[in-house]
Amino acid sequence: MVRCFVTSPPIITLTTDFGLKDAYVGVMKGVMLAIAPGACLIDLSHEIEPHSIAAGAFLLRTAFRYFPADAVHVAVVDPGVGTARKAIAINTGHGVFVGPDNGLFTHVLTDQGVVSADHSTLHGAFAVELSNQRYRLDDVSNTFHGRDIFAPAAAHIARGVPLDEFGPPVNRLALLPNSLPIVRNDEVVGVVLHVDRFGNAISNLRLRDLPPSPTFEIAGFEIDHLSSSYQDARINVLVGSSGFVEVAVQSGSAAGTLGLSTGDTVVVRPRT
Amino acid sequence: MVRCFVTSPPIITLTTDFGLKDAYVGVMKGVMLAIAPGACLIDLSHEIEPHSIAAGAFLLRTAFRYFPADAVHVAVVDPGVGTARKAIAINTGHGVFVGPDNGLFTHVLTDQGVVSADHSTLHGAFAVELSNQRYRLDDVSNTFHGRDIFAPAAAHIARGVPLDEFGPPVNRLALLPNSLPIVRNDEVVGVVLHVDRFGNAISNLRLRDLPPSPTFEIAGFEIDHLSSSYQDARINVLVGSSGFVEVAVQSGSAAGTLGLSTGDTVVVRPRT
Amino acid sequence: MVRCFVTSPPIITLTTDFGLKDAYVGVMKGVMLAIAPGACLIDLSHEIEPHSIAAGAFLLRTAFRYFPADAVHVAVVDPGVGTARKAIAINTGHGVFVGPDNGLFTHVLTDQGVVSADHSTLHGAFAVELSNQRYRLDDVSNTFHGRDIFAPAAAHIARGVPLDEFGPPVNRLALLPNSLPIVRNDEVVGVVLHVDRFGNAISNLRLRDLPPSPTFEIAGFEIDHLSSSYQDARINVLVGSSGFVEVAVQSGSAAGTLGLSTGDTVVVRPRT
Repeated sequence: MVRCFVTSPPIITLTTDFGLKDAYVGVMKGVMLAIAPGACLIDLSHEIEPHSIAAGAFLLRTAFRYFPADAVHVAVVDPGVGTARKAIAINTGHGVFVGPDNGLFTHVLTDQGVVSADHSTLHGAFAVELSNQRYRLDDVSNTFHGRDIFAPAAAHIARGVPLDEFGPPVNRLALLPNSLPIVRNDEVVGVVLHVDRFGNAISNLRLRDLPPSPTFEIAGFEIDHLSSSYQDARINVLVGSSGFVEVAVQSGSAAGTLGLSTGDTVVVRPRT
Repeated sequence: MVRCFVTSPPIITLTTDFGLKDAYVGVMKGVMLAIAPGACLIDLSHEIEPHSIAAGAFLLRTAFRYFPADAVHVAVVDPGVGTARKAIAINTGHGVFVGPDNGLFTHVLTDQGVVSADHSTLHGAFAVELSNQRYRLDDVSNTFHGRDIFAPAAAHIARGVPLDEFGPPVNRLALLPNSLPIVRNDEVVGVVLHVDRFGNAISNLRLRDLPPSPTFEIAGFEIDHLSSSYQDARINVLVGSSGFVEVAVQSGSAAGTLGLSTGDTVVVRPRT
Repeated sequence: MVRCFVTSPPIITLTTDFGLKDAYVGVMKGVMLAIAPGACLIDLSHEIEPHSIAAGAFLLRTAFRYFPADAVHVAVVDPGVGTARKAIAINTGHGVFVGPDNGLFTHVLTDQGVVSADHSTLHGAFAVELSNQRYRLDDVSNTFHGRDIFAPAAAHIARGVPLDEFGPPVNRLALLPNSLPIVRNDEVVGVVLHVDRFGNAISNLRLRDLPPSPTFEIAGFEIDHLSSSYQDARINVLVGSSGFVEVAVQSGSAAGTLGLSTGDTVVVRPRT
């Protein structure tokens, strides 16, 4: 039986809150390799804070663009596993995303501009519910859809099964609130989406959201200009590698030094 | 030199207590790729509690069935490295297992029914001692058999070297005690084998071990029925995704809330 | 488009201080797979202590020899990212190393004997500065050269682009001080380079650095002989699996029990 990929092997990335202590991630990989032998399986992170959909949504947003457009991204941060939330797959044009319909793909969708301004409908992307039992494991548990539904779906998609084989189209998806900054009068109000390993606090603000000479108010601290590198000052607000405004402390942790955490607001005003 | 796998590449999984801070796991992979270029290397976990053979044995049991039957599973939780304990490989019918003969494969073997009831002999499985120096690294250390013996053996097996080339057959293996629940009168007594990342306490009890209307006593707590999902009640006893009875607390940690840990007993009685 | 590797796929290892919580490592892999589809990507460690060049240098030294000589090793522990430090690639004969010019490759180079005794020049190895923009991402950030410079360079090298295409040769590299033990009179003074997961404290001393009947003084403790395994005594000084003298406590942590940490000196004297 010759099943080698003559072109490059398909890429499937994995993002979960499963951690690396248990075998949950390894089991998902076993399921995928049984369906798509030779697939290239890449971990984005399995250390998403348990049940933090917002953290998973941010991470996917920072990563997907660096993968080829035909990569499949399976993501499982799924506190509602076993409830009525849908299992979905979305072809966004740059990547196919597989996981629970709970907002996990919010930033990927808004970044690609494939949801309408009021978040009500998809346009330019195609989503389906993963309901066809043919592309699930035989026994679907109530507790581990990563293994039973999402891993098999991702592997079948990577092998080339067309999306509409998996179930009916879905035109409205669950989306997280506050994924975009809010403009009020001459202020722009963003929020810290993520604190990374180095203690840098990363917001949902981008360079285009800022006035020409911005000042920042974060956790009671006033920072009066945008830095261009981590070495500019002790406390730096700069546009980080993922394109978002972040707060960093030189040779230290912004989260620790300034007491920042996910969900904190960042208020931007023009310098007066 | 053409060495591409024309069929799908062989799968080798790795399970260790080496952690991910040091290069021990990476070194094992280097050794395997030098012998079996292109092999598909999958991590099950490297965060097994150091020297906890029981934890490693449980993890292998939950994972191996999701991999193709010809996968090779190398496992190294090996407090006795450098002592007289044997290095072994076992073909169980579903997977070839490579590691120290210290009980690490107990649950894999009992689950596949390839050890006799009194645990004295193998039947339906074939095991060998890894003594042939041809399939080891040139210099075997006293401290890192994962690199020097187990990784090379797994890679040679994945390439197709027959098991009986590696050394003499072994008919009795070291097995962990208490791997199966104990029945006494109308009680069944199990034990917590594993606490997972979410704080769920997973026992060695399976659905078939329970009476029709079971009640449970765990750490002084009485739970009077079996739930069908994590959402049924605040404290749920249910059959988890790996087929074992587990205790879970809704939106919380059973281990934390109820003070459960590995080795705690779970007593099951019929409802009176 | 046929892009399969007919020989074995090229190997690229990754060593960073990025951790596994964020997507930084996954992003580097996406960049590499887009350039070198099907490449075999192996993690050495991403849990290097943040900004600890010495720890990364040690880890690379213990691992590189177990990989084929044509493997590419990308390493990013880079506190000076965005400053004037060079980005480099070095072909040492056994492996090509890609990363910042900050001493991260010190032990790899001294181990292969390709730097002169006074550390002033390379001989028998070829290094270049990674300045050719053709082999970088289009937009190079000030904060994430792992993604923008090192990952693309490693992938292009793995595909076979000759090193001298990347930029001008470099003949002097940054090297860490104290990488080799110091001999004074009849003493040899080494240093603890690394404390591993098991609490073993690993020094820069090798067997060849020791007198015939050595005694050791470590953190005020006197140990009067070299052990041959972890089971010889409660406190053992032995030559560990990476070829370096290490201190281990049986069924315990040398670092915890003896209070050892990275940078502590180990004084060796002949028994009197």
